[in-house]
Amino acid sequence: MTGLTKVILSEQDMPTHWYNIAADLPTAGVELPPPLNPATGEPLGPDGLAPIFPMALIMQEVSTERYIEIPDQVQEIYKLWRPTPLYRARRWEEALDTPARIYYKYEGVSPAGSHKPNTAVPQAYYNMKEGVTRLTTETGAGQWGSALSFACQMFDIECKVYMVKVSYEQKPYRKLLMQTWGATVVPSPSTQTNAGRAILAADPDSTGSLGIAISEAVEEAALRDDTKYALGSVLNHVLLHQTVIGQEVIKQLEIFEEEWPDVIVGCTGGGSNFGGLAFPFLRENIVNGKQTRIVAVEPAAAPSLTRGRYAYDFGDTAQMTPLMKMHTLGHDFVPAPIHAGGLRYHGMSSLVSAVKAAGLIEAVNVQQKAIFDAALSFTRAEGILPAPEASHAVLGAMQEALRCKESGASETIVFNLSGHGHFDLTAYESYLDNQLVDYEYPEAAIEASLAHLPQVA
Amino acid sequence: MTGLTKVILSEQDMPTHWYNIAADLPTAGVELPPPLNPATGEPLGPDGLAPIFPMALIMQEVSTERYIEIPDQVQEIYKLWRPTPLYRARRWEEALDTPARIYYKYEGVSPAGSHKPNTAVPQAYYNMKEGVTRLTTETGAGQWGSALSFACQMFDIECKVYMVKVSYEQKPYRKLLMQTWGATVVPSPSTQTNAGRAILAADPDSTGSLGIAISEAVEEAALRDDTKYALGSVLNHVLLHQTVIGQEVIKQLEIFEEEWPDVIVGCTGGGSNFGGLAFPFLRENIVNGKQTRIVAVEPAAAPSLTRGRYAYDFGDTAQMTPLMKMHTLGHDFVPAPIHAGGLRYHGMSSLVSAVKAAGLIEAVNVQQKAIFDAALSFTRAEGILPAPEASHAVLGAMQEALRCKESGASETIVFNLSGHGHFDLTAYESYLDNQLVDYEYPEAAIEASLAHLPQVA
Repeated sequence: MTGLTKVILSEQDMPTHWYNIAADLPTAGVELPPPLNPATGEPLGPDGLAPIFPMALIMQEVSTERYIEIPDQVQEIYKLWRPTPLYRARRWEEALDTPARIYYKYEGVSPAGSHKPNTAVPQAYYNMKEGVTRLTTETGAGQWGSALSFACQMFDIECKVYMVKVSYEQKPYRKLLMQTWGATVVPSPSTQTNAGRAILAADPDSTGSLGIAISEAVEEAALRDDTKYALGSVLNHVLLHQTVIGQEVIKQLEIFEEEWPDVIVGCTGGGSNFGGLAFPFLRENIVNGKQTRIVAVEPAAAPSLTRGRYAYDFGDTAQMTPLMKMHTLGHDFVPAPIHAGGLRYHGMSSLVSAVKAAGLIEAVNVQQKAIFDAALSFTRAEGILPAPEASHAVLGAMQEALRCKESGASETIVFNLSGHGHFDLTAYESYLDNQLVDYEYPEAAIEASLAHLPQVA
Repeated sequence: MTGLTKVILSEQDMPTHWYNIAADLPTAGVELPPPLNPATGEPLGPDGLAPIFPMALIMQEVSTERYIEIPDQVQEIYKLWRPTPLYRARRWEEALDTPARIYYKYEGVSPAGSHKPNTAVPQAYYNMKEGVTRLTTETGAGQWGSALSFACQMFDIECKVYMVKVSYEQKPYRKLLMQTWGATVVPSPSTQTNAGRAILAADPDSTGSLGIAISEAVEEAALRDDTKYALGSVLNHVLLHQTVIGQEVIKQLEIFEEEWPDVIVGCTGGGSNFGGLAFPFLRENIVNGKQTRIVAVEPAAAPSLTRGRYAYDFGDTAQMTPLMKMHTLGHDFVPAPIHAGGLRYHGMSSLVSAVKAAGLIEAVNVQQKAIFDAALSFTRAEGILPAPEASHAVLGAMQEALRCKESGASETIVFNLSGHGHFDLTAYESYLDNQLVDYEYPEAAIEASLAHLPQVA
């Protein structure tokens, strides 16, 4: 079937289980350090997370089972958009004049427009099963807030989203989408939490950050009995849920009669879409001796994997979360205001960090002018308009394809087009008007925030 | 396979031909009156259209061949999003508590977000084949302009879009999408054409209309040798190209093991998405004795099928087009500023008008508050956010489903969800803020503009 443009599996061929890479890390000699209680420095047991997460998700967080069954009710909601298509980028290959074969998995077909509902739906489901009636969360660019609003609507759960104020004001469409699905959206920092009030007292004009919004959402969940918290990336159970992506891609490449891929590319902010695509392939590297290169592409404005330190740190600005070992720029590092708001995070998921530290994956950082160059090249060949976040993966794939052009290698490149850019057109406007600014941090700036890392014995 | 949520055909099962209902109208005793030259009142031969359309499209316009082959290069572009999914709206059926089975064809998966690329791509293709290097068009809400910008990009044709000024200002994202695909977008009325300058001389603050924008685009195409014009609805060849929709639905219903549908519902502005879904089913009514009811849903603010006259009229405000026999409200009728900008047209395609006049289809008109009620009910059950235009079909299907609830009939209802609402969230904002206004025309207002119909012997 090498003439196909895309392959869409039937609903019967959808994965029935999520894949948990924690089960295979020991085979690779990789240790996954546990989260720590910041007060004691001791490993945090499941009970330590119970105030903010339902027990089913906590058990997934610490599970070492290789495959975890996807509940029927989650599968039913997944079917509103899954399985998602895998495309062969024939027209783009031609435009790039590369001998490489480029495939992209398109997760933008979900109602919220990105991969985020893959985890929002099970998170809402497990909360509903345990009697939770309200969820809080944060959102930056708005992809995660949209996804959770949609998922909560599916299970009749109230949803409250703390949206980084600058995005709340600049992205009214994202806010409206959440409201259309019934969510309450509050600009953060707000006066509704201690964390928000403290920030506003210090800086009444604060435009907010993801770290601040997390603090507000976690605080509200911790204080209210009927309310828990949901996070859209970083945590083990989030990456677990995203592995439907990579599992589908493996089946789809077979239908394309494709050899095993040479390179896998994903963008990284907290690591979830990257892990979702990469981990099923990484398993084959670890267990079956495959040698696929796996490349994470992050913004130069938030270069945790490429320039951060692998150390214990807080997940949020107000130091309310447990400590996690991860590649971090320091919890008070505020990334420059690039358009890929979903990648503006100081840390990286523990799972992605661990495999990076072990040398099992590669990472590069890129500037935003270059990512929009790549996005424009892509959309003018393939039609789909990529989100700025996903455009990092587009650029990563393009760099690999151009390397192949130079060497003449006809490699197989697979990347994750994690979301569309329908709500990001002002970013394209800045690009078309030549208004984009690139950001590069001097070493001293990163060292300064790393100096605030918590001390762990 | 009755447990399926959706059916997506494989690329090999895509229709290879467009279906031309003109071939079957004589069997139903329906006459399709020809377009007339407004100067002479005589039927317009193919040469009369040659200044603005390529000959291949003119020949399709007048063809009575039943099936017309889809060129390979068009098929290749179609595969960037086609075949599109057919969903069973299980969750919405449950929310409506109806015994009806509701199916919806989702055309919003195209790069431009609606069914419009189904015809934009072949129109750009045939122009390219005949050496045309520039296309002009008009756009209201922006769906058609986006689609043609995308299609021109695929075939390396320049694209110039006259965008109704009020939309140009209110929908910057649509404008940016077109620019991202390389198009030039001009607010209409503009100073670049005689038609535009005349309107501005009379009213410097004119916010434009679809009829005015058509005049500008047609004028530019008629005056420049390298430039032709493309229309997104109304014409026979446009409806022809859209019949891939209904042909796919017939195959998809088979995979659902569904009996022949009882009711088909589509929204109508110029008639193209409606015709695309309905005509393959109408053929079965005409030729094979099937008895599917076919319902067109139009806005009360532009009620051509329900309150217009079946008569010869101009397609545009400045009286530059040929005369076409159609249901019309009069070429100088300017529909109220409802949010479904794509349905704000004074006329209706000749094909849809002819089958309506012959009693082969039904039509209803609806108010915009009701269509957003239906859209909200739909998106909270099914996830997908419908465009305001498509929401007319959502409401039409809902009314049929509620009728079934009352009667207890377990009918099969199929409707066309012709596009998503990602660029229409300010309309949802007006709805959520209770700011929507309904419009109803007194009989005298419609009579007044009908008094200006051209006299035809």
